[in-house]
Amino acid sequence: MTPSASALRLDTAAQDLLFRQAHSTHAFTGEPVTDETVRAVYDLVKYGPTAFNQQPLRVVLIRSPEARRKLVGHMARGNREKTARAPLTAVLAGDRDFHTELPAQFPALPEAATRFYADPGVRERSALFNGGLQVAYFIMGIRAAGLAAGPMSGFDAAGINKEFFAEGAHFVLAVVNIGRPAEDVRHSRGPRLDFQQVFSTA
Amino acid sequence: MTPSASALRLDTAAQDLLFRQAHSTHAFTGEPVTDETVRAVYDLVKYGPTAFNQQPLRVVLIRSPEARRKLVGHMARGNREKTARAPLTAVLAGDRDFHTELPAQFPALPEAATRFYADPGVRERSALFNGGLQVAYFIMGIRAAGLAAGPMSGFDAAGINKEFFAEGAHFVLAVVNIGRPAEDVRHSRGPRLDFQQVFSTA
Repeated sequence: MTPSASALRLDTAAQDLLFRQAHSTHAFTGEPVTDETVRAVYDLVKYGPTAFNQQPLRVVLIRSPEARRKLVGHMARGNREKTARAPLTAVLAGDRDFHTELPAQFPALPEAATRFYADPGVRERSALFNGGLQVAYFIMGIRAAGLAAGPMSGFDAAGINKEFFAEGAHFVLAVVNIGRPAEDVRHSRGPRLDFQQVFSTA
Repeated sequence: MTPSASALRLDTAAQDLLFRQAHSTHAFTGEPVTDETVRAVYDLVKYGPTAFNQQPLRVVLIRSPEARRKLVGHMARGNREKTARAPLTAVLAGDRDFHTELPAQFPALPEAATRFYADPGVRERSALFNGGLQVAYFIMGIRAAGLAAGPMSGFDAAGINKEFFAEGAHFVLAVVNIGRPAEDVRHSRGPRLDFQQVFSTA
């Protein structure tokens, strides 16, 4: 165990499951991912914090061959085959109209929604950032379920939005393949920035 | 244990520590948070996945009374006292120039950086979204260390950017108070959306 691993309260098996031994995955076994598992993931990660308790994340689970065929057509070339073969693929989107739910979701400050009505650009940024928080919690939840996630940003966003979110208030944030990893297919991990490259003190 | 908790591989103690029993915290004990602890947190959460392995997150740890005084002056009224009293406060920012690091961070696709050079708006959105992923991982890491996080979005962003990021490439994403929670001070948790409000099937 490294000194930093033992300095944390989270046990090392959980550290490995969520972060240290987890990898973005490109090839999966054929084992299906059930709706029950996805519900269990959401029932955990829905508690992750966001600004004003806003919850812009929306998820489309791709179950039909027709929807998968359409989605694959909007993916970047390098993401097509793995998306065609994944046991489950989720299209994660942000809802620009999250502010209409704020009075119910953040009763502590009923006026929180008012700041979002005037400016669609503020809503867009908020849904992008807080949707990002929720995408990260969702990825952690997939790993918490003992599954592997293959999150992707290489796709034609306008095409996906037109195909799956034609009503206009939702916009794609990420596409995530989900399943049990095929054991022997794993890309090497890219380097991470050092502590002193990221942190400074004031 | 709920059925959804037992459906996950992550043990329930870890589920509680990171999600179910964790709360955004507004009052802390006086116990300090050392740089060693922050290093241990980063050494875990740096492995969280992002698009093209970009790492836009930058963190300023507020240690001096002078920096804290300046920061508090930019916080929204309701966030001032708790920020003044927190054992440690971190200003989390995104780096708009993350793309200059991509050739080193994502050697699998050396041309990944090229798409970011042309359009500052694309960089801004990418730093906001992927910085959001990294903010979420950081919050999980604080909890993994057995500490509580008090993430805040109520502040004068332009004021903080001018004060702490005058060089222009960094922009504040969130301000997070960190410490051991004072046991008896806890806001009630806001409601979360139901599974069927968030998920659909195609």
